[in-house]
This record gives sequence, structure tokens and C-alpha cells, in this order.
Amino acid sequence: MTLRIAVSGCTGYAGGEVLRLLLQHPGVTIGNLTAKSSAGSKLGQHQPHLLPLADADVLDTTVDSLAGHDVIVLALPHGTSGEIAAQLAEASPDSMLIDLGADHRLESAEAWTTYYGGEHPGTWTYGMPELLLAEGAKQRDHLRTATRIAVPGCNVTAVTFALAPGIAAGLIEPTDLVAVLANGVSGAGKSLKPHLLASEIHGSASPYGVGGVHRHIPEIEQNLGKSRGDQIRISFTPTLVPMARGILATCTARLAPGTDPATIREAWQQAYAHEAFVHLLPEGQWPSTAATLGANTALVQVTVDQRAERLVAICAIDNLVKGTAGAAVQSMNLARGLPEHTGLTTIGVAP
Amino acid sequence: MTLRIAVSGCTGYAGGEVLRLLLQHPGVTIGNLTAKSSAGSKLGQHQPHLLPLADADVLDTTVDSLAGHDVIVLALPHGTSGEIAAQLAEASPDSMLIDLGADHRLESAEAWTTYYGGEHPGTWTYGMPELLLAEGAKQRDHLRTATRIAVPGCNVTAVTFALAPGIAAGLIEPTDLVAVLANGVSGAGKSLKPHLLASEIHGSASPYGVGGVHRHIPEIEQNLGKSRGDQIRISFTPTLVPMARGILATCTARLAPGTDPATIREAWQQAYAHEAFVHLLPEGQWPSTAATLGANTALVQVTVDQRAERLVAICAIDNLVKGTAGAAVQSMNLARGLPEHTGLTTIGVAP
Amino acid sequence: MTLRIAVSGCTGYAGGEVLRLLLQHPGVTIGNLTAKSSAGSKLGQHQPHLLPLADADVLDTTVDSLAGHDVIVLALPHGTSGEIAAQLAEASPDSMLIDLGADHRLESAEAWTTYYGGEHPGTWTYGMPELLLAEGAKQRDHLRTATRIAVPGCNVTAVTFALAPGIAAGLIEPTDLVAVLANGVSGAGKSLKPHLLASEIHGSASPYGVGGVHRHIPEIEQNLGKSRGDQIRISFTPTLVPMARGILATCTARLAPGTDPATIREAWQQAYAHEAFVHLLPEGQWPSTAATLGANTALVQVTVDQRAERLVAICAIDNLVKGTAGAAVQSMNLARGLPEHTGLTTIGVAP
Amino acid sequence: MTLRIAVSGCTGYAGGEVLRLLLQHPGVTIGNLTAKSSAGSKLGQHQPHLLPLADADVLDTTVDSLAGHDVIVLALPHGTSGEIAAQLAEASPDSMLIDLGADHRLESAEAWTTYYGGEHPGTWTYGMPELLLAEGAKQRDHLRTATRIAVPGCNVTAVTFALAPGIAAGLIEPTDLVAVLANGVSGAGKSLKPHLLASEIHGSASPYGVGGVHRHIPEIEQNLGKSRGDQIRISFTPTLVPMARGILATCTARLAPGTDPATIREAWQQAYAHEAFVHLLPEGQWPSTAATLGANTALVQVTVDQRAERLVAICAIDNLVKGTAGAAVQSMNLARGLPEHTGLTTIGVAP
Repeated sequence: MTLRIAVSGCTGYAGGEVLRLLLQHPGVTIGNLTAKSSAGSKLGQHQPHLLPLADADVLDTTVDSLAGHDVIVLALPHGTSGEIAAQLAEASPDSMLIDLGADHRLESAEAWTTYYGGEHPGTWTYGMPELLLAEGAKQRDHLRTATRIAVPGCNVTAVTFALAPGIAAGLIEPTDLVAVLANGVSGAGKSLKPHLLASEIHGSASPYGVGGVHRHIPEIEQNLGKSRGDQIRISFTPTLVPMARGILATCTARLAPGTDPATIREAWQQAYAHEAFVHLLPEGQWPSTAATLGANTALVQVTVDQRAERLVAICAIDNLVKGTAGAAVQSMNLARGLPEHTGLTTIGVAP
Repeated sequence: MTLRIAVSGCTGYAGGEVLRLLLQHPGVTIGNLTAKSSAGSKLGQHQPHLLPLADADVLDTTVDSLAGHDVIVLALPHGTSGEIAAQLAEASPDSMLIDLGADHRLESAEAWTTYYGGEHPGTWTYGMPELLLAEGAKQRDHLRTATRIAVPGCNVTAVTFALAPGIAAGLIEPTDLVAVLANGVSGAGKSLKPHLLASEIHGSASPYGVGGVHRHIPEIEQNLGKSRGDQIRISFTPTLVPMARGILATCTARLAPGTDPATIREAWQQAYAHEAFVHLLPEGQWPSTAATLGANTALVQVTVDQRAERLVAICAIDNLVKGTAGAAVQSMNLARGLPEHTGLTTIGVAP
Repeated sequence: MTLRIAVSGCTGYAGGEVLRLLLQHPGVTIGNLTAKSSAGSKLGQHQPHLLPLADADVLDTTVDSLAGHDVIVLALPHGTSGEIAAQLAEASPDSMLIDLGADHRLESAEAWTTYYGGEHPGTWTYGMPELLLAEGAKQRDHLRTATRIAVPGCNVTAVTFALAPGIAAGLIEPTDLVAVLANGVSGAGKSLKPHLLASEIHGSASPYGVGGVHRHIPEIEQNLGKSRGDQIRISFTPTLVPMARGILATCTARLAPGTDPATIREAWQQAYAHEAFVHLLPEGQWPSTAATLGANTALVQVTVDQRAERLVAICAIDNLVKGTAGAAVQSMNLARGLPEHTGLTTIGVAP
Repeated sequence: MTLRIAVSGCTGYAGGEVLRLLLQHPGVTIGNLTAKSSAGSKLGQHQPHLLPLADADVLDTTVDSLAGHDVIVLALPHGTSGEIAAQLAEASPDSMLIDLGADHRLESAEAWTTYYGGEHPGTWTYGMPELLLAEGAKQRDHLRTATRIAVPGCNVTAVTFALAPGIAAGLIEPTDLVAVLANGVSGAGKSLKPHLLASEIHGSASPYGVGGVHRHIPEIEQNLGKSRGDQIRISFTPTLVPMARGILATCTARLAPGTDPATIREAWQQAYAHEAFVHLLPEGQWPSTAATLGANTALVQVTVDQRAERLVAICAIDNLVKGTAGAAVQSMNLARGLPEHTGLTTIGVAP
């Protein structure tokens, strides 16, 4: 059986990437494509790399355009998917909804209000199959029955994969975590802001959302908290660097008292031993974002700086694949009973 | 009086940048230019951007080529300047020597041997005028009488400027420091290594020297130790990002017990209030490396993440200017009694 | 039946790209992988993006390593494949050989000697299925029975696709052609040359092989000559620009006397109407290399500048896919009776 | 005597670059700075690289803000400087006006209407001192008495310098010229257009204004026409490549009948022998944009492709310096009787 899938926000980067993956997925057909301001145009004007869809019509993002599909992907600005989801629940009750935005990721209504403002749109099943839960369980199990999926934030994914094994195994202090990220600029979307112009980004590295205000913080802490139940505190600073895609998350953590550094690697190995998409590199080899471009891969490495008494765990992902669209497809596969890796690859495009 | 200056290693990036600055310095004339493997060629083949020197001959790097100049700049691979410096001390005793390499930066022979190997080549006056010393003094005073100058490492400069005010004022814990850097690739020099090829660097962020092994660590700890005398421990991870120049150092530190966050900004303001080249940005404005390109500027910002109980201090520099050649010229100015800013600018080239 | 394929030069960019495509090809298995200087290592050290092959052994490039495979891909420096091909013809007579290098592309021994030097290694079936031959035939027909395939040069591919329809239809003067290319730097391979360092390439555009000396010229003229039989003369200038992949070939040609500009578009349309991989864009939309990244697509557009009396035809390709590895796979498919597009895509990775 | 200079459009790229140069000019002081939408802010928010002006107020662009300065630089969108210039002529009759925009470059009202639309705002003295006029004269002489200066277009500058010596000496056919340019993206200004976003520009080369429609064409033809008086026809195609600054103009021309290729180089040598800023490189060395970054340099090289019977002349400039702000300062120097090179440099910033 083939799934017919609609994609809203099809002219943006996240929507385009979902389409790129779905075009290569053997079990789906592309249904309606919608966008807000570009309705009436052809997709080829906005996504010239998706040649098979060049002549596809871009429709307006309405309940009518989206209802009736087996799966509906919402690639909308945060704060806007709640309303249309409610309408679709009524108009198209059998459709699976996948939200690429932030609206349905947080479990705490308070955290939502603090970081995003407004009323909490609710919580959907979190689309990170590899997330370590208490007692060795993984989030994968929850996804098998999901009909509403909240795709994780891209930065969140990189930081979670880097640190969760150490938190889960109790090897690192959960309240003295530090993450600094090098971010490709597509993570900011196709929005027309001066600081995203090529002339500004070329040859420049600059931080943003510094000082505990970034909206991905409560989501990271929610994830790591699930791995052990402790209170989590992370200092999180993303930095824009001159590349289109990719996140390199450099995370450090103070070792928990009594942690034997020799046991560190083992914890990461165990956490990801059976994962197809999260890969602990051989000792001495460090992740690069280039090796993940276009792939659903997360490359991880970990070491201990015994002098500074901190562990360093680094994770590289493609923010648009494992950080967004790949996670969506992987979660959808689980939720629809398809092999988890269907339509996904660990083969990157490099150089 | 005009200083006649020789530059060894003139075909590399550090040597080229010294020449770029010296060409715009009103008090100097360019003397002999030397290099190892390119002797016999014209400088224009190697540094086509230095048009006024296009026809200058590249000589062999020998004592004969270098002796007799008022100032001799050594832009040589580490481990090689010690020997020629010893010879020049004899052959050209009145020459000021400025070492852009690492050989004469460290005061601890043990640290040298641990991080660089071999015998410690000795310690020269450290070329960072703005370095905070105990009791409000600065390194500037030591440079006024220097005849041998060790120019700081570029990463070291960025991290030191970011964190020193907090250490000096006792506001942050000196043993739980974390620095993650985004580095332009020119910091690695003009060496023919596969991972420095443009195809590898484009679109990629990757860490190097992870886990406490990077040679800049003892130098950072030496600097910050001078600001207060405490033992310093820093977790330090540089990452290569796709730009030619620039360092963005994102540094975090746990607040010392009892630190009032409201006093933080004041400490940084005071430290740099009278500095021409280290500039604390207005609140809310964060540094970008692009704003420092070609300039001797260090842009600094600091804030407190009260939730994570960590301070975040960020410094952007041009690794080849304030991180290398600009520091050399600034220190030379001091040592020769010229106004400190002669030939240097805070005006960057952007976009 | 599954083809077992060996790849020599597996650590380079062309070899890596062939492997990337073959890993996604349903009709092949990867056989031995060889390289010259990296024998004894694992492929993961050289091609970290090819995760499924991370543990594959890199063998020495010898006849023994390569013989016995159904298909042997030679990704070797030019001038070196002739010898090993001769040995393989004897040791492994049933193997299909595919040369990604230049050795077997030219039909004129004189042109070979002039542009490459040394003795002509011979001519193999030219691996450009879409090449327009006289009287409406295409090169595809010759490839169906090929056992020795010479993969075209990447620049050649872009220029040929841009101009051939006009030459074939007699619409443009064949001896006043001009092509200027913007080239991603991976086309120069993984060679350790100073001008290919990231610091040199970033922020820089520069020409190379200027003035009629570039080795791709006789190959372009050979191709266009086949489209009509005229003598061809092209002024050809490639320029390195700061990107890893991609060729944008901007080609201009004087209109032949009597050409009606209104007939131009029709000629290009007809030439590529039934081609899966060469795509004439809708009027007014111009090719970008980004839209071809990772895809076997050539995007083409053409217009007439009536004022200057010249036609402008532009073609964008990914130099490593349609310009190299994709052409190899496409030709192999034809030669082995597989559907031509097997394992190939027109879906690029963007942004 | 010091010139007090106002700059309108100070928050854009051209305005910012004028300020960068003026800050380093010994004979000027910066007067009022104006912009349209950013009035009321500090310049440091828009141009953080111009540290000495960080606290300068951005005023509204009005006649009141600009009147009374010795020199007024107009860095405004084309079509808007005519009106304010007329008002300033009355309100501030002694001010020199320098227009960085296109409004006053063309002498032909018809060409203006065709390419820009609307009424021709008039013609000012053309700010290209090195432009070859008939009988060996240069544009420099006209600038010595100018009070209204029209700064050339950046693409125009690169193409003119590449080809003018051949036109002036009658060595090339004036009606079969071809220019293809690789353009840094700052040439498009700080405008918020989707195709200028960093994600779109990274890793991509794409043409624009193809087919004889680009507004710089009549200006190029006007310049080259002055060098000899012939009718000029040029096929002109700019291409955006992933760099912030720089233009590499690759120009080809059919040799005029009877031209001895051996005389070519001599013509270029003679044309630029006494020019400080236009530099013919030694034979065999080709221009790169990187070597001109931040400098007022135009690097030129020329050769003959005897096989294709076309000359290839290539010019690299920094579009914001020699292509815009440097030309403005150089012309102002001439017009105010200062040494032509005051405040300008041929020293680039590389790598």
C-alpha cells in the first residue's frame, strides 16, 4: 500500500527536504503541495533541484488542500500549526499529522509559554526514535503507534545524541553541561533577514540566541531528563558559520564523581550499537558535517579531557535531514509499520 | 628614525600578513625577505595581494640574510626559531627579534616538553599588551623594554580576551572553563595537508585537537593564571569552519560562589575601557569575525545565563591580525617607543 | 544478475563519487577497492561520508586486485590507465573497463600528443549517451555494445550540452564559439597543490589554463564536430570559484547567417525532449549549479542576444556526477542492458 | 585644508565602503551620515566593522542633513539621486556631488530610457581616471575640474580595463566582444531578495541578466566607444558565485584582421604603464579576485588563443573598491587637486 502525502510549506527549506526524501521513498506518492505566499506558482521556481516535481502546482495552505491524505506534513512557522491541526483533526480524522515545527514538541506548557509565548498547542509523540528513555527503553516504541508526530529541533537532535548516553549511564553531571554549535545557515529558514544575506554570512562566524534564551534549550533538557530523570541544566550557544547545511555540536560535561574515564566509550557504544543512523566513529576519528550532507546520519565521537576533568562529546548532523526531514520520515516509517530506514540513507554527498 | 625590518617565512600566511601591515606602517622600511623552499623567486608569485612588493626577491632563510636589520620577524615552523635566534644573538646582537611561532611563549619548560616535545627554547617577553596581570597591571609595561618578543597564539588571544576580566576579578571559577572556537582555516598555515584542501573545508565544520591535547592550552592557562594566580583548567576545542580568516571563541565559565551577575559587565568594561584594540560591544550586540577582518580589533561581549549558572563570553578576532601580525606590530611599537597603535587599524573590511 | 564492480582510485573524489552512486544502484555489488598510496587503510578514513563502506579495506592498485570483476572502474591519473588496461585485457578478458580519466577519450592521436604528450593510449567508446551525432543519431547507440568506456571530461560535458543543439542544427557559427566556466574546485581532484588550499580558494575567483592550452579543448571540438562534421573552434576558459562541486558553463556563439532567432529554442527542445538527464529549463529560468548537486542532471537554458548577435547557452552540472561518475554509471547501464537511469537520480541536494 | 564629507546610504555596502576608505584618508573628516529606513539608529548596528564610527548617528536622508558639506556622496538606489541632486544644487551650490549609483553615467538619454526607464537624469563627469580616450588622452583630465562625478558601474570597470587597450589600438574587432563575469554577491547590495540568501548562494554559481538586457551594457559600450570611436557590441553575462566581494571578468575578442599577436601585450603595457591602480601582471600570472580584496587595484592579464583566433583579457577587481568606493575617492582626489592615490592602497587583504 502506498501512502499519499501532502506537504505544506513546500517552498521552504524543511518542506523541500521532506519532498526530496519522499521522492526517493518507495512506499509513498506525493500528494498536494501547499504554501502561503507562493500559491499559484510551479514548484520548479522555488525548488529547482526537485526536477521530478518541477511542474507541480503550489496550492494555498488550506484544510481543503491538505485533508484526505494519508499523511500530512506541516512545515509551517511555529505558532501556526496548532490551529490547522485542530481543523484537520475534524476534517481528516484518519490522516497522520507530522509537525516539523516546534509547536508540539514540549511537554511542559510552562516551558512553552516561557520560550515561545502564547498558549501551549499541546504535545505530540516525539519523533526521535533513538532517544534513550529510562531503563534502557527508547522513544522508538512510542512511535510505533503514533498518529501525531512532533519532529525534534535540529540543534536539539545533535546535542541530545552527543550527551544522552552519558546522562543515561550517570557518568556526567547533569547540571553542568555546555554545548556550542557551528550551524549552517539553512537552519534559519528561507526568511528575508539582513543577517542571513550571503554577503553577511560569507567569511563570518557569529553567535545568536546567547545566554540561555534559545528556544531549543527546554527541548534539550526535556530529552536528557528522560534519559535519567534528573534535572538538567545546559549552557547552549549556537553560532552561524558560512555553510548552507550542517550542525556540529561540541558538548562538554563535567564527569560525575567517581566516573572511571575508561567506561565512557562503552556507554556510547552500547547506546548506539544497534542504531542504523547514529554512528559512533572509531576512536581518533572526529565527525565532520560534510560527511553527513544529505544523509540521515548522526556521527558521534566522545573523549575525556582528564586534565580539565570534562568529557567532550561531538555530534555532526545534516540539520535538514537527521535534524528535520529525515527524522520525520523515519518516525513516519515506524508509525506506519514500514521498515524504519525505508527511503533513508547513511550515504552522504561529499566533497 | 625608520626601522629596517627583515621577515623570514615571507611566503606563508603569517609572514605575508606582517608584510601587509608593515607596508602601511609609517615608521618602517621593508628589508630582506626570506623563505626556505621558495628562495630565488619573486614575492609576487606567492603574495599577489602585496603589489608594492611584487618584484621583491625571496632570499634563503639564513643568518646572513637576516642579520643587521633593526627588527627581525621570525615566521617559522615551531621548533626552528630557537636555533636561528641563538645565531642571530651573536651575529646581530642589536636586532630586536620577534617570534610569531610558539617557541618562546611558554614559561614552563615542563609544559613545553609535554605539549611540543624536545628541549624548551626559552621564554621571551609575551606580546600581548592588554594581558591583565595581578593588581591591575598589564603586560604592556613589560613590553616597553623588550628586545625579544614572543607573539601569542591566535586561539590563545581570543580566549584570553574573553575570559581574563572574569578571572582577574574573581567572578568565575578558574577550573571549570570551557572554550569552543570556530576557526578560519588560515590559522593552519599554508601547509599541504589533505584536510586543508578547499573541497574538504567547503560546507564542513569539524573539530581538531580535541580532548586536552591542543598546544594552545598551556598558553591560555599561563595567561589566565597571571590574571589572578589561581590554577586554571580549561576544556578547549577548536573547530575548522569554512572561512579563510577569523576566530570566534565562545567561552563559558561557572560563576564563582556569591558572584552578583549584575557586576559582570562592569568587570569587562573596566578591563578594556582604555584599550584601543579590545572592544566590549554595546549590550545585546554580539561579535562576528567579519567585523574584524583585516583589523587589529578584538570584539568582546559577555552575558550571564542565570538558568545554567554559567557566564558566556565571546571574542572575535582576525587570527592573522590581532591573533598574529597585528600583535607583533603592536608589541614592536611599544618596544621601540612608538605610539602603540602606529600602523594598526580598528577598521575592518566587510562585507 | 548482479554486477560485481571494482574501483581503483577509491580514495579520490571521482572514485568516491562512483562508489556513492554504486552503493545506491540496485544491480551491483561493490568488489575490491584499490588506491596507490593508501593501501592497507580503511575506506572510512578517506571517505567518511560512505558509511556503509567505512570498514572496507583499501587494497593496492594491482592487476590481481582488479581482475575478475564484471566491471572495473579506473579512476587514475591520466597517462596511467593505458598500461593497466592492457594488462587487464589479458588477465581479465571478460571485464568491462570504464576509464574516468582522459586516456581513451580522444580519437586523434595527434591531438593527444599535442595536449597530453606521449603516445596515444587508444580510443574507447565515448560515455556520453546524449551526444548528438550526424543525422539525428545519438552516442547512446554505440554504448549498447561497449566493453571499454571512456568517460567524458566534466567541462566537456557542460559545454557540449550547451552548444551541440545549435551546431547540429546549423544555427550557429562553429568557429566562433566562446565558453567561460565557473568551476567548483573538486574538479581538480584531491591533489596537494597550494592553489587548492581552502585559504586560497575562499573568496577568490581565478582563471586557469587560459589561451587555448586546456586539455579539454580537443575533446569539446571532437564532440561538436560529430554533431555536424564542421571544423570547430572554441575559446575556452575555466575559472575556479569558491565551491566544492559544480560547473556553470556560459557559452556564446555567433548566429549563423540567416538564422531566425525564433527557431533557436526549438532546436534545444528537440535535442533534449526525450532525455531523462539533460533538461531544458522553462523560458526565463536559468540554471544554477546548486540545483544539480548530487544529481545526474544537466540543466540547460538558451537565449539570443539580438543586439550582440550572439546566442547565449548555459549549462549547469555537478562535475562529479553528470560530469564524471554519473556518466560512468549511465554508460555502464547501457552497455550491460540495464535501464539507462538505474541507480541515477535527477533530484539534487539543495540548499 | 580638510574636506568635510557627508555620505547618504551609509548603511548599505557601497556607503559603508566609502566610509571605510574615507576613515583612512588623511585629508577628510566624516560629516553627516544618512539612510532612509535606519534613521535614528547608530552606525555600529549596521557597519560593525567601522569601529571608529560605531557611535555615529544615522540621520534621515534629507537635503538638510546633506547640505553644507564640501563633498556629498550619494549611495542611493538608481533613479533616486537625480531629484536630491537637483535640490542640493540649489541648497548647497558649492558642494561637490559624487553619485555611486547609475543615474548620471550614461550620455545617451535614449540608452537610459531603454535600460533603466524613465527620464534621463543627466550626465556627470565619468569617474574612471584611467579610461582611454581618443588619441592617447585619458578621462583623468576631465576629472580635474569636475564638481559632479558619476562613479562607474563595477562590472563596467572590470570589462573596460580588460578590453580598452585592444580597442584603442585597433587590435580587436569592436563588435564581437564577449564578457563573462564571476561576481561576488555584495554587488547586488544589501537588498532582501530570496536569491541573495546565504543558503542559496553557498555552493552555487548562476547567471543573471542574460541575453543583452543587463544595465551595464550601454555603459561598457560607451566607454569602449570613447577609446576609438567605433560602434561597440558586447555579449555580457554576469554570474553570481559564492563570494562576498570581487569581480573576475573574462573577456574575449576576435583579433582584427592583420593583427600581429606579438603586438598585443605591448598595447596593454603601454595603456597601464603609468597607472598606479591598473596593473598588468607578469606574463603567465593570472589575476585572482582575492589579490584585490580591499585594495583599489585592478589586476589585468592578456593572451592570444591563436587556435581560436581570439584574444583573452581578464581583469580582477574588488567590486566595492576599484569598482565603487575607491573610484569615488580617486576621482574626488583629482577633482579637489589632491594626489590621486591619497587614501587608497594597492595592498589587498589575503588570504
